[in-house]
Amino acid sequence: MNTLMNAHEAELAAARVLARCDALAQISESPDGLTRVYLSPEHLQANARVGKWMQAAGMRVWQDAVGNICGRYEGAEPGAQALLLGSHLDTVRNAGRYDGMLGVLSAIEIVSWLHQQRRRLPLAIEVVGFGDEEGTRFGITLLGSRGLIGNWPESWPAVADGNAITVAQAMEKVGLDAANIDKAARAVEEIAAYLELHIEQGPCLEQASLALGVVTAINGARRLNCRFQGEAGHAGTVPMAQRKDALTAAAEWIVAIEQTTCRYGQQRVATVGTLQCTSGAVNVIPGEVELSLDVRGPDDAQLAELLAELLAQGEAIARRRGVTFAATEYYAINATACDAGLQRALSDAVTQVQGRSLSLPSGAGHDAIAIAGRWPVGMLFVRCAGGVSHHPAEAVSQPDVAQAVQAALLAVENFAACFTPLATPSREAV
Amino acid sequence: MNTLMNAHEAELAAARVLARCDALAQISESPDGLTRVYLSPEHLQANARVGKWMQAAGMRVWQDAVGNICGRYEGAEPGAQALLLGSHLDTVRNAGRYDGMLGVLSAIEIVSWLHQQRRRLPLAIEVVGFGDEEGTRFGITLLGSRGLIGNWPESWPAVADGNAITVAQAMEKVGLDAANIDKAARAVEEIAAYLELHIEQGPCLEQASLALGVVTAINGARRLNCRFQGEAGHAGTVPMAQRKDALTAAAEWIVAIEQTTCRYGQQRVATVGTLQCTSGAVNVIPGEVELSLDVRGPDDAQLAELLAELLAQGEAIARRRGVTFAATEYYAINATACDAGLQRALSDAVTQVQGRSLSLPSGAGHDAIAIAGRWPVGMLFVRCAGGVSHHPAEAVSQPDVAQAVQAALLAVENFAACFTPLATPSREAV
Repeated sequence: MNTLMNAHEAELAAARVLARCDALAQISESPDGLTRVYLSPEHLQANARVGKWMQAAGMRVWQDAVGNICGRYEGAEPGAQALLLGSHLDTVRNAGRYDGMLGVLSAIEIVSWLHQQRRRLPLAIEVVGFGDEEGTRFGITLLGSRGLIGNWPESWPAVADGNAITVAQAMEKVGLDAANIDKAARAVEEIAAYLELHIEQGPCLEQASLALGVVTAINGARRLNCRFQGEAGHAGTVPMAQRKDALTAAAEWIVAIEQTTCRYGQQRVATVGTLQCTSGAVNVIPGEVELSLDVRGPDDAQLAELLAELLAQGEAIARRRGVTFAATEYYAINATACDAGLQRALSDAVTQVQGRSLSLPSGAGHDAIAIAGRWPVGMLFVRCAGGVSHHPAEAVSQPDVAQAVQAALLAVENFAACFTPLATPSREAV
Repeated sequence: MNTLMNAHEAELAAARVLARCDALAQISESPDGLTRVYLSPEHLQANARVGKWMQAAGMRVWQDAVGNICGRYEGAEPGAQALLLGSHLDTVRNAGRYDGMLGVLSAIEIVSWLHQQRRRLPLAIEVVGFGDEEGTRFGITLLGSRGLIGNWPESWPAVADGNAITVAQAMEKVGLDAANIDKAARAVEEIAAYLELHIEQGPCLEQASLALGVVTAINGARRLNCRFQGEAGHAGTVPMAQRKDALTAAAEWIVAIEQTTCRYGQQRVATVGTLQCTSGAVNVIPGEVELSLDVRGPDDAQLAELLAELLAQGEAIARRRGVTFAATEYYAINATACDAGLQRALSDAVTQVQGRSLSLPSGAGHDAIAIAGRWPVGMLFVRCAGGVSHHPAEAVSQPDVAQAVQAALLAVENFAACFTPLATPSREAV
């Protein structure tokens, strides 16, 4: 049985986390809403602030070659493999204050508690605040975590933002060097696993009246541009039976998408988020409709099966109506499975804290997607009000955050207890 | 039995009609497409050209106080009541060359043939080329025909076009005077009835392999702006069962609109011509959808019943899905019944020419709507390729136009044969 952070300690930790979320929310490029993007002056200010908190929690602190803020709390043996905790410090435009930041600041509380207890684990704890997960500035995502695993595409330094400033130029402005980005990469043997705490960004925990849940996988996603092409016509003169209405075809498909996806079970979702009637007018039968399709699920094979069925339905509807259907996939990301051992460690911890655990997939993307390319990952979800995220109304409760810090600490201890150090200690990080 | 214009005469007449449609198509404000709007220099040029053709056909010609070009071919007794034939000479932007013009030029051929045969009927024949039916310039419609029945709203002279030129100012520029518009009004006793020949603008005649059809009524129409309001959400994190997706609600309604309208029989049509997802994005569950609804039918009571059923379905779908539904009617026009006697005269004529007749409602609006406010109206439809209108691809065949001129002439003679002159001859027109 591990030592549980007591209720009073957890409350104080949660209050500090929330106060620090508030403090970081002030570091924004605009005064009337939170926007903090990669390689901006605000990014460096947030790094400096978080770095100070890391130091105060007993960590050695550095900013890495892609602009992530990093801290290390040594284990019982100096130079031990590290368990990496963290999330991101960048935001979307007009963002909420918890998406990303909650995971970084909770991780600091865990280290702080261990430090106060003078506890050293069989492995080191590192905390990272990634510089870019959202992709707000350059339209490319996960720049921080992909820096850590050392697989930035060669093209990225030349990618420009809305003001024609490239990633490389923006790095130079803040004292980084695009020629050095590979120095951010960490060797496989330096890190044992990655644990990320994040708001759910969905309504499932709220629905289940639970503060915490354990992520099974980060959903794979496919995005398509689709089009029904029929024949425009006079809304008054063409009888219903003689129409080739692209919109009624699209409508029938949208209803079929919903029905079919529901049949695939609760963890699959499909969304038509945009629809345009090309040169539509109140008195013209729509001749062409363009719409988007976004499908997600925790299992790639089943997602492919669902998508194939949806596209076959689109084809069948079009054929029966004498219109044509086309769909082009322009984005695909595989599902990221969370490590079974980490899920167990998290579930045991969550059960100990809130009485029972709940496993759920993540519908949104996270830094853990990139990290999973190199190390086992686990994720702990915290209930957020109304499932709202990417919006100033984003909210978490202090009791929930207290439970989250308690459970995350327990999961760290669960993981550490089962941890077998490498025969040869790895070189010390950085 | 009336004299039939023989096949050779009809062919020559049709060739002349088509050549004149081509000639009028050159009178356009833009060189690369036909656009001719009310009170433009091109309007007056077209009037002058048509006036010359009227004169050559044996008519006395004048331009009336709202800019309609008018011709009169006296009956056996000078000053007799007139049968009015015609249609409009204005166009939509980038128009076809037959919508409107075909009816005016065919009418001139009828008079021309009577004139050549030195035939005088018990009533006079008047031909009118209305200056505005489409409403392209000022956004108000039927200005020509509503001038003839003398019911321009008081507000119309002050209505401005896209260049802030009012109707009154535009009239002044072409030598008309808004103060005199009531002089265009014709007394009830001057005119016996109105007969309009027009392209179908729909595919029914083509479907039936017939050149000609007789209009039963001009459909009534209702137009509404509708909105489904749900809740926007993250496309990846909100399970299907917990969504309040405004677009799936709208899609279900669009499918219901189609099914329900089909159940009301072939002459009712309903169209959702526009649909927007407010702030839609591929990865966002649509929170709000706005769409238009256009319903039409030849019978007002049944149209009202259909519309009520469609709105109830929208309500029921919204309620079941936990979203809201709202609809605002912004346009309504009652159906215009064609006169039974004129329908008979036309049907007999069409049967004589093409072996059988076909009765159908008009889905589009026509000058006959205005004229029906004062006199009995009848309409003869001519097949157009693919049902296409309001488009440069608008097309009719010469054999169809030949049959149309033959049938229209026969209908005029049928009507004249049954005509009883008024006891007191009316004052001569204008």
